[in-house]
Amino acid sequence: MRQAAGKHSFQRNPNILSLQKAKRRRQRAAIDQKWRCASNVQDLEQLDTFHRAIRPYLCLAQVFGMMPLANVLSPNPQMVTFQLRSSGTCFSLIFLLLGGVKTIRLATKLFQGGINAKNIVGVVFFSSGMIICMNFICLARCWTRLIVPWTGIDIIMLFPPYATTKHSLRRKLLITGCSLGCLTLAEHFLYYASNYYNYRMQIMHCQTNITDIPFSGYMKREFADIFEMLPYNPIFIFYAFFLNGTFTFIWNFMDMFIILISIGLAERFQQLANRVLALAYQHVPDAVWHEIRMHHILLCELMDLVETNISHIVLLSCLNNIYFICNKLLTIFTKLRYPVNYAYFWYSLLFLLGRTCAVFLCASRIHEASLLPLTVLSMVPRDYWTEEVQRFSHQLRSQYIGLSGLGLFHLTRRSFFGMMTTLVYYEFMLLQLDAKSNKNDLPALCV
Amino acid sequence: MRQAAGKHSFQRNPNILSLQKAKRRRQRAAIDQKWRCASNVQDLEQLDTFHRAIRPYLCLAQVFGMMPLANVLSPNPQMVTFQLRSSGTCFSLIFLLLGGVKTIRLATKLFQGGINAKNIVGVVFFSSGMIICMNFICLARCWTRLIVPWTGIDIIMLFPPYATTKHSLRRKLLITGCSLGCLTLAEHFLYYASNYYNYRMQIMHCQTNITDIPFSGYMKREFADIFEMLPYNPIFIFYAFFLNGTFTFIWNFMDMFIILISIGLAERFQQLANRVLALAYQHVPDAVWHEIRMHHILLCELMDLVETNISHIVLLSCLNNIYFICNKLLTIFTKLRYPVNYAYFWYSLLFLLGRTCAVFLCASRIHEASLLPLTVLSMVPRDYWTEEVQRFSHQLRSQYIGLSGLGLFHLTRRSFFGMMTTLVYYEFMLLQLDAKSNKNDLPALCV
Amino acid sequence: MRQAAGKHSFQRNPNILSLQKAKRRRQRAAIDQKWRCASNVQDLEQLDTFHRAIRPYLCLAQVFGMMPLANVLSPNPQMVTFQLRSSGTCFSLIFLLLGGVKTIRLATKLFQGGINAKNIVGVVFFSSGMIICMNFICLARCWTRLIVPWTGIDIIMLFPPYATTKHSLRRKLLITGCSLGCLTLAEHFLYYASNYYNYRMQIMHCQTNITDIPFSGYMKREFADIFEMLPYNPIFIFYAFFLNGTFTFIWNFMDMFIILISIGLAERFQQLANRVLALAYQHVPDAVWHEIRMHHILLCELMDLVETNISHIVLLSCLNNIYFICNKLLTIFTKLRYPVNYAYFWYSLLFLLGRTCAVFLCASRIHEASLLPLTVLSMVPRDYWTEEVQRFSHQLRSQYIGLSGLGLFHLTRRSFFGMMTTLVYYEFMLLQLDAKSNKNDLPALCV
Amino acid sequence: MRQAAGKHSFQRNPNILSLQKAKRRRQRAAIDQKWRCASNVQDLEQLDTFHRAIRPYLCLAQVFGMMPLANVLSPNPQMVTFQLRSSGTCFSLIFLLLGGVKTIRLATKLFQGGINAKNIVGVVFFSSGMIICMNFICLARCWTRLIVPWTGIDIIMLFPPYATTKHSLRRKLLITGCSLGCLTLAEHFLYYASNYYNYRMQIMHCQTNITDIPFSGYMKREFADIFEMLPYNPIFIFYAFFLNGTFTFIWNFMDMFIILISIGLAERFQQLANRVLALAYQHVPDAVWHEIRMHHILLCELMDLVETNISHIVLLSCLNNIYFICNKLLTIFTKLRYPVNYAYFWYSLLFLLGRTCAVFLCASRIHEASLLPLTVLSMVPRDYWTEEVQRFSHQLRSQYIGLSGLGLFHLTRRSFFGMMTTLVYYEFMLLQLDAKSNKNDLPALCV
Repeated sequence: MRQAAGKHSFQRNPNILSLQKAKRRRQRAAIDQKWRCASNVQDLEQLDTFHRAIRPYLCLAQVFGMMPLANVLSPNPQMVTFQLRSSGTCFSLIFLLLGGVKTIRLATKLFQGGINAKNIVGVVFFSSGMIICMNFICLARCWTRLIVPWTGIDIIMLFPPYATTKHSLRRKLLITGCSLGCLTLAEHFLYYASNYYNYRMQIMHCQTNITDIPFSGYMKREFADIFEMLPYNPIFIFYAFFLNGTFTFIWNFMDMFIILISIGLAERFQQLANRVLALAYQHVPDAVWHEIRMHHILLCELMDLVETNISHIVLLSCLNNIYFICNKLLTIFTKLRYPVNYAYFWYSLLFLLGRTCAVFLCASRIHEASLLPLTVLSMVPRDYWTEEVQRFSHQLRSQYIGLSGLGLFHLTRRSFFGMMTTLVYYEFMLLQLDAKSNKNDLPALCV
Repeated sequence: MRQAAGKHSFQRNPNILSLQKAKRRRQRAAIDQKWRCASNVQDLEQLDTFHRAIRPYLCLAQVFGMMPLANVLSPNPQMVTFQLRSSGTCFSLIFLLLGGVKTIRLATKLFQGGINAKNIVGVVFFSSGMIICMNFICLARCWTRLIVPWTGIDIIMLFPPYATTKHSLRRKLLITGCSLGCLTLAEHFLYYASNYYNYRMQIMHCQTNITDIPFSGYMKREFADIFEMLPYNPIFIFYAFFLNGTFTFIWNFMDMFIILISIGLAERFQQLANRVLALAYQHVPDAVWHEIRMHHILLCELMDLVETNISHIVLLSCLNNIYFICNKLLTIFTKLRYPVNYAYFWYSLLFLLGRTCAVFLCASRIHEASLLPLTVLSMVPRDYWTEEVQRFSHQLRSQYIGLSGLGLFHLTRRSFFGMMTTLVYYEFMLLQLDAKSNKNDLPALCV
Repeated sequence: MRQAAGKHSFQRNPNILSLQKAKRRRQRAAIDQKWRCASNVQDLEQLDTFHRAIRPYLCLAQVFGMMPLANVLSPNPQMVTFQLRSSGTCFSLIFLLLGGVKTIRLATKLFQGGINAKNIVGVVFFSSGMIICMNFICLARCWTRLIVPWTGIDIIMLFPPYATTKHSLRRKLLITGCSLGCLTLAEHFLYYASNYYNYRMQIMHCQTNITDIPFSGYMKREFADIFEMLPYNPIFIFYAFFLNGTFTFIWNFMDMFIILISIGLAERFQQLANRVLALAYQHVPDAVWHEIRMHHILLCELMDLVETNISHIVLLSCLNNIYFICNKLLTIFTKLRYPVNYAYFWYSLLFLLGRTCAVFLCASRIHEASLLPLTVLSMVPRDYWTEEVQRFSHQLRSQYIGLSGLGLFHLTRRSFFGMMTTLVYYEFMLLQLDAKSNKNDLPALCV
Repeated sequence: MRQAAGKHSFQRNPNILSLQKAKRRRQRAAIDQKWRCASNVQDLEQLDTFHRAIRPYLCLAQVFGMMPLANVLSPNPQMVTFQLRSSGTCFSLIFLLLGGVKTIRLATKLFQGGINAKNIVGVVFFSSGMIICMNFICLARCWTRLIVPWTGIDIIMLFPPYATTKHSLRRKLLITGCSLGCLTLAEHFLYYASNYYNYRMQIMHCQTNITDIPFSGYMKREFADIFEMLPYNPIFIFYAFFLNGTFTFIWNFMDMFIILISIGLAERFQQLANRVLALAYQHVPDAVWHEIRMHHILLCELMDLVETNISHIVLLSCLNNIYFICNKLLTIFTKLRYPVNYAYFWYSLLFLLGRTCAVFLCASRIHEASLLPLTVLSMVPRDYWTEEVQRFSHQLRSQYIGLSGLGLFHLTRRSFFGMMTTLVYYEFMLLQLDAKSNKNDLPALCV
């Protein structure tokens, strides 16, 4: 009778409204208290929050001018803010200036020399680097609005009744980041190795009277756009390497960032699912289901917040990856001269494919984890199947939870499959377009 | 017990049926009263209705023969009717006659000279202009049936409890319309500039003894189909420019119209969502949920009405845009002679892409806004989760709300992405078909 | 209290089960009674059943050997059965024999002369005719199982409370059938006209000394496969024309049959929707909702039955249409010699496209009509929103209702759009494949 | 009142929780008892479990080194375990070793001779064989975890109230397996026949002075990679044939295995559906619905288990089939010399297409069978429509039940249609790529 009474009594009892509000306020206060409690005693540093786990990457991104945030190493996420006058902003401006100059010089050269599908790749690489960097600067401006509620949820999910995970989030992100970093470094090194070997071989074969091949010659060819303007000295060599490295970093960081964010989010959805899974076949009071449902809503709100701030970066990442994969695939049947060239080509193609695959698979884990509690709900015994459980069940099925590319596509396994199918089409068509001008012979080594 | 009693008593109490009807009648009467009240005292003009906002565009469309409506400037939407004997119908007939003559002359010339994928574009442009115009005349005939219920809903949504929006609908439509108008004008001007420059340069290079290049020469070439029949005098120059301008207007107005309609509808769904969002975590009486749900049904009925009358125009717009984008893309690698040609080509391509994108994004906002209340419903506290709220929640998820192209496709972000993917396929294939006859050289300037 | 009591009392009162069964039996009996009542007094002939409407088409199909049914003109659908020893089966066997001979002769000639994408079309036409015919013979075997329950539902839906439709089903099917028939005849006639004109012109130009062009010459060329074996006399001329006509009939009848079936089914769903729409905003007793829901289930079961028996024909029809459209499109840029050739080519292409479009649009109307009651259900007032209404609402949304091609695709507007998109791809690719061997010149008239 | 009481009393009566647990435990115990009962008395052998039906295939797979399981013929599925030191593992190691040597030799030869789309097929065949074999070894390691719960469910579904099926599962699997096996053998034999005939004809035509054509010559050409290293004697002839046969077996077994698994799962879903269908229009106590729903959950859990262990094999199978179909289609217009070559080509192409089709259709039957109970649920009479039935109805619609390829695509009829559409695209594009180098003439017989 209690429920029926509650349903009809509010017309007569208006202060039930304020009671309701008070309850909600109390719930919020509880979160705030935990938060204050944790942050006051500097315990936040001990907690395995996403903020703590992503911090090293933000710091690294700052060095390369991507995330101009002040106090990026502070344990308190509220301190990590975008400030116009900070070292981060300074790095960003310098990078944008130098990068801009390089991009414009390359574009000018390209337009003068005649444009085609193959030589455009360099300009696309550098200009997409600039666009990515600007997108990350935009993200940095909203970072506080994102990481503070996230830490709030983290604090809830790091205490019982939520079980701690086997490996800490920090460790997971560290391992993922380091592996990706090493693969990236290897790719970058192979690029130089392949180019240097080509240069060396060309000199040796074409200029037979030369006995000593200077490294500076390679430098001057590789960074032609820089050393045509600036003198050849160690500072500018470092500058040249650093600029190239920064662009490579930016290009890889974008995908890595999406992967890290996805791991962080999927972890929380998984924790919620684990809590629900532990309740299978058990009697669970309605209040617990209510709490779980509310936490699910909190997670969905966080997901929405992340989606709003990240989805343009996701779109950029996918377009970028598709373009570079297509570009690599275009030359898949082109003969190369030396094994090191083959090594670089195949390594970088597989690296690109693997990276794209990793982005989709990590992001799709969010969606998959969010659906896990459904099975348990169907096993709730008849007598404990209340309206609360029913609403939770509906809620889980009602909307898509996960990252998307500006709403244009969702990051799921099925859309990854669709993207791969499309890629194969494009590849076939590019090969046909290319076949017309393709001699399939190596060009003369010495011009 | 009240509910159970109500459920079973109707068998004994047959006048509950008439009570129910009376209630519904009363509700309708309330709307009617507001409406009469507003229209009687000429207050309708002060209200930010969609009718008031779209009026200037209807007026403009009438001048170009597209929307033959009488009393188009009347503040009362019931007065705006299609009349066979009106200035609007007259304009339409004149336009259809003159446009028909031009289209037939062009088509005849084309068939005589031999048809191919590139020279067909002019005839497609003019005949699609005729088809669009006829579709809009059809729409004008049903306009009253559309705008009167719309204004009815507008009157409901412009009074509390619905919050007023920051910027009035009129202002939003004005800004959108003006921006699109300016971009269109710029495109139209660039077209003439590019053609005139080509003409000038050709005369200067090929006819070296000529010092003075008459404007009339350009006119006679540009409007060859007109000045072959009619004498060269200011009236016919104006006629030539006006006819071209009208077709360009029609072509752009179609997309603009869909955008304006979408903004109007999305605004109302957004207002409903805002009202629901303001109720988050609050106690809301069942009667309020019922009212909101009924308003949602009204909006959905309006949506259906709009869909029925607009969907053929949406289909036409999409096919039109795809065709012209493909056509532009086909010549993307063709060398052009002068910078102004490049400027026109790239401007018009980007303008086309942007316009198509705007149509889809604006239209998809209707669907997105219609889904917004869902999150709030999941946060309704347990004790206030009544059947009414549950039905609202089901209702929101049950059917797709938004514009479609004759039911063949929905205007959503995802279908936009699909369309773009398809466009890239088509482009690749068109390039291949074109590659066979493509010399990639500039043709001789002087024949 | 009655409901609650009913829920719990059955454990104690086992005969409620038999009561339930009795109720169901009574319901069935009511249908049977109506049926018997109608059939006994020969009133069935006066009712606008689907059986009466489709009868003339079955009769026609029987003449061409497609539907070997005994008593096809009987007003009682239970009398229309498949009998091995009947005139229908005889017609079918004769057709299969003669058609088989023709197909094999054509195939043999083709294999001897060398096969390519263009000359294969004749063999595909004749062999698909054979396959279609065999599919229809299979359908004829199950026809009684299909039309008897259908008539049962028709009898229910032809009496109040279901409103009679403005035009009878018979009239609708008659108009549809006759229009399609006329268009088909025109296409068939144009085919002969185009070929005969070609023949005449060739003789006139190449054999200058001939003054009289005999019709028999054309006959001998057109039906080369027949008059090489058989003597030229009126009987075999009739035979030749009849065989060609039969194949054309079969090819068109398949699509027409799907259209007619779709119209019949959509009509019933529309009637159900109309009944529900008339109840909008009204108080409706639960028993009425139950009756409507049960009728909806009956319709769905009929839909399933039709789907099971028709879906292979739907698949065949779609594949057939796609193949012949692609084939026509392949020669879209081929130059033709005389206007009558152009007339035939464009008429038959547009006829094919229109027919395919009609199949999809008619079939998609079933699905659209089945969803119509949803809006009304959302407007059921709060106090009359019972479990019955809720179940009906769920039922309407739970599964796809409509025809499909062997479960591989549904016949909806969206899948039609998808099919058209795919057709454009295929067309582009076929054009490319064709472009290699395409001279785009007319072949010499006189060899 | 009982239900309401039950809902609210648990706060006061904490031991309801233990009661609940006890009930669950009792249910589990009942299954265990049936199991023990069955296995103790060696009755398991008499039951038509999936384990008994798949056993012969596992045994066969073991011989070819694919499923290294100990006690594979034991009637008790708990005895069938993966053991590192067993004859199965030994076979697997030997096969991997010999297969690896063959694959590496072929790959080396290919890289030396120059790689292209046509000669790569052999290496792909052998390396995919290796990958498939390794995947099956992985599956063997998890086999116990899969087959034990499956047998548990089988034991439940083989006793009343579940009806026995007309044909036993064993018979169904036997017929399916044997038919597929015969078709495979025929394909394998035709392959040798076609090659041997080619060899014979070449010798006869080119070496006119030779009267006797030794079989060993053919052997040495067919198995060039083996007889270049090893002497020609019966043991190595057997070895050569056996290795080839094993790879063919593996290649076909993968698809057959998916088909067999699908039949087994679909059978159980069909049985559940049959039980529900038998309840149509009847009064069914809530407890029965609860039991059915619980069994449905058990089946879904089994489905999840199978999906987890099989989905990588499904993906591999689809990619494999697509590749080999594309490869066959690529040479569809290539002229062949002798009828036996045509016979082999068309037989193997149709066999491949049919096998792929069979995989999809069998797997899609799981999904279709899982949806069958829905119709019956909508016919449950009003008074017996309890929460239990409603939950079952929701459960049936909530998630996709069926096999998928690593989550990238579902195995349904519609995805099969999509795959076929894609295949046609690829085929068109491959033909174009091939057309450039295609002479369409037979190469010279004697080089």
